[in-house]
Amino acid sequence: MNVLDPTHNPKRRAWVTSANAPDSDFPIQNLPLGVFSRDGGAPRGGVAIGDQVLDLRAALEAGLISGEAAEAAAEPNLNRLMAMGRPASRALRAAVSELLTDGNAAVAQRDAILVPMHAARMQLPCAIANFSDFMASRDHSWRLGARRDPVAPLPPAFDSLPVAYHSRASSVRVSGEPVVRPNGQWKRKDGVHFGPTEALDYELELAVWLAGENALGVPVPMSQAPERLFGYGLLNDWSARDVQRWEMPPLGPFLAKSLSTSVSPWIVTAEAMTPFEVPAAPRAGGVAPPLPYLDSEWNRARGGLSIAMEVWLLTRRMRAEGGGPARLTATDFATMAWTPAQMVTHHASNGCNLLPGDLLGSGTCSGPTDEARACMAEIILTGPIELPNGETRRFLEDGDEVIFRGRAHAPGAVSIGFGECRAEILPAPPWPAG
Amino acid sequence: MNVLDPTHNPKRRAWVTSANAPDSDFPIQNLPLGVFSRDGGAPRGGVAIGDQVLDLRAALEAGLISGEAAEAAAEPNLNRLMAMGRPASRALRAAVSELLTDGNAAVAQRDAILVPMHAARMQLPCAIANFSDFMASRDHSWRLGARRDPVAPLPPAFDSLPVAYHSRASSVRVSGEPVVRPNGQWKRKDGVHFGPTEALDYELELAVWLAGENALGVPVPMSQAPERLFGYGLLNDWSARDVQRWEMPPLGPFLAKSLSTSVSPWIVTAEAMTPFEVPAAPRAGGVAPPLPYLDSEWNRARGGLSIAMEVWLLTRRMRAEGGGPARLTATDFATMAWTPAQMVTHHASNGCNLLPGDLLGSGTCSGPTDEARACMAEIILTGPIELPNGETRRFLEDGDEVIFRGRAHAPGAVSIGFGECRAEILPAPPWPAG
Repeated sequence: MNVLDPTHNPKRRAWVTSANAPDSDFPIQNLPLGVFSRDGGAPRGGVAIGDQVLDLRAALEAGLISGEAAEAAAEPNLNRLMAMGRPASRALRAAVSELLTDGNAAVAQRDAILVPMHAARMQLPCAIANFSDFMASRDHSWRLGARRDPVAPLPPAFDSLPVAYHSRASSVRVSGEPVVRPNGQWKRKDGVHFGPTEALDYELELAVWLAGENALGVPVPMSQAPERLFGYGLLNDWSARDVQRWEMPPLGPFLAKSLSTSVSPWIVTAEAMTPFEVPAAPRAGGVAPPLPYLDSEWNRARGGLSIAMEVWLLTRRMRAEGGGPARLTATDFATMAWTPAQMVTHHASNGCNLLPGDLLGSGTCSGPTDEARACMAEIILTGPIELPNGETRRFLEDGDEVIFRGRAHAPGAVSIGFGECRAEILPAPPWPAG
Repeated sequence: MNVLDPTHNPKRRAWVTSANAPDSDFPIQNLPLGVFSRDGGAPRGGVAIGDQVLDLRAALEAGLISGEAAEAAAEPNLNRLMAMGRPASRALRAAVSELLTDGNAAVAQRDAILVPMHAARMQLPCAIANFSDFMASRDHSWRLGARRDPVAPLPPAFDSLPVAYHSRASSVRVSGEPVVRPNGQWKRKDGVHFGPTEALDYELELAVWLAGENALGVPVPMSQAPERLFGYGLLNDWSARDVQRWEMPPLGPFLAKSLSTSVSPWIVTAEAMTPFEVPAAPRAGGVAPPLPYLDSEWNRARGGLSIAMEVWLLTRRMRAEGGGPARLTATDFATMAWTPAQMVTHHASNGCNLLPGDLLGSGTCSGPTDEARACMAEIILTGPIELPNGETRRFLEDGDEVIFRGRAHAPGAVSIGFGECRAEILPAPPWPAG
């Protein structure tokens, strides 16, 4: 299980001074892993530190780190490191933290091993083996379900298991890559229609990246689930609501989701999140405890994560006017009804083999308050969204850019951030001739 | 588009004489591709011919075939050949057909290039990039839907688009690998229960393997869809019906399906299937034609495939008694309401990038007659299944082996077969302690 160690020491400071600013997403207590390229060179692993990226390949070549975990983390994707499991990432974290600590002699080689973040082109952190998407927020499920059935808004199984569906791995893209408005089919008053979606939405989710592997047929009990959690990021599960409503019964969302999914480039490791573990959210009033296979003492005490998450919208007009983005959502992951460990154990409970590089989406991270509604479909239940510059929105328009941010706080710990997950909406292409 | 060429000539005969038997699944007009290993050696590409496997690596080394397509097909998986697209598989087919034709000098090297099928250990034919499962049979959808809603049994969108969901790639296994009965959660009269499924079913489907790649955001119009169809196999979409009913609303099937999926090892190429192309099934009475994006003249004339498909059950008692399996299902793929080309175009209509090695399941291939019910959930709607030896079944029991067979016939063409897709059910493991 996760324990605090010297890498979490709030007094530890980096020789990369930008990392020591109180508002930095990437202090030395964070050390998220990612993959980047520079000047068209080969992709390689890196660690975010302040406004710089530690080039792990360069650090290896300079002899500043060594060993199997460091070699794996320097590769063009993190899959091998993920396959090695949590002990490898713990060892790597300890070495990198040491290397970057103020006073370490590595500072003399800073030009050889650091790349300014603005010069690093981020890639997907790994080859995504499989992508499964959960629906773990009771508030999200309740609000959207109440439109259909005000008496019983939740799916029947919602309180008994973390509801999920298999989603599409091939269309996951890293933050910054634009999203093309998809064509799709849905039913209008005048009949069944095919054309560009008129209801493109964001969904603010936590990305959960998996480590290790269980063989097909071999479940992962709750006692083993924490060791399968490699780390976390932000995930935008772009959704075409008109398409979704029409195609969904009975097999679930398909093309409404596979148009694209955006993830933030930096994986905040489970080690970095240890200070921000919180008890699993209390069960809703009158709801029975989970079945034994989804329950553990550790999960009750530390299965949740306290992460403040936000959505900002930057419209084309805001950019033209030189204005900043407007905040649409402010929520916290700690309110989710199911924890990442429960997602892992439930997912593998039928013997499904979970692989290194598998991606789980938590589902839209909505909370109980109005500002914690984490997709537009929830917000517009009470009317159109009015932006500070006078614009209004029901759903996303071409040229809109959606920006997710996340930050973990805890008493006595240095706050760490997730960086951004952002993408701009491009117009739908004309349907190809022929 | 597909055209008949000398490889389809019904008079062509192989020097592998077992291939010339009228009931062989693998005459020289078939030449399906697969991946096998022998005596623990490295996996390599092969072609089924009669009761033998042509070892493509050995044929390359013997100088009997050459070129990029043959090199790609000899690799430990077929992904690179799939990426090269249909022209590559056409060229390979022509060369292999020539090589195996009666009178070719290659017969002198038969011991170096042939492996008896019983000595070949078949593997998955490729690394499965993504797996999407359709529900393209109107009869299957109608029968199961009528339980819920006798007035409107079909999903609302059924006649407007090929309904599908993203399924799980990691748990797809090749024919012969056993299936472990999964644990799962469902609702019983006495409350929510977790334990081994009591309603394990088969679903007889066609596997559709994809060639080529479209970039994210770039659809595949119907005119281009046929070139994305690499080939076909048999697929068993094992389903835990009790789990499925409970977990499905609203996001679709999840753990009821990802327990395992079995595929036949041989990919019958789109080239081999050319003589068996038939018109797309007529639209049901009163149903409007598909929207233009899902329609093409080619599809109306040749988008369907005539494949007789069967399911056989071999129980533990039948094996003990030395009896043969009992046939549960006999159906034909030609009755499906949506064609493989329509599945491809719809799947990519939102810009979703389809990759070489992607797998589509057609959905349960049920037809209108009672014997064409292609899963147990449909058959038992009229009572338990009575087997010839006196046993009865509602769902599968431990020790049951399910065997799929498929064969394509057409006037004037040599009939070709799909081989088998089979697996035995193993008991559920005890839930792990701790």
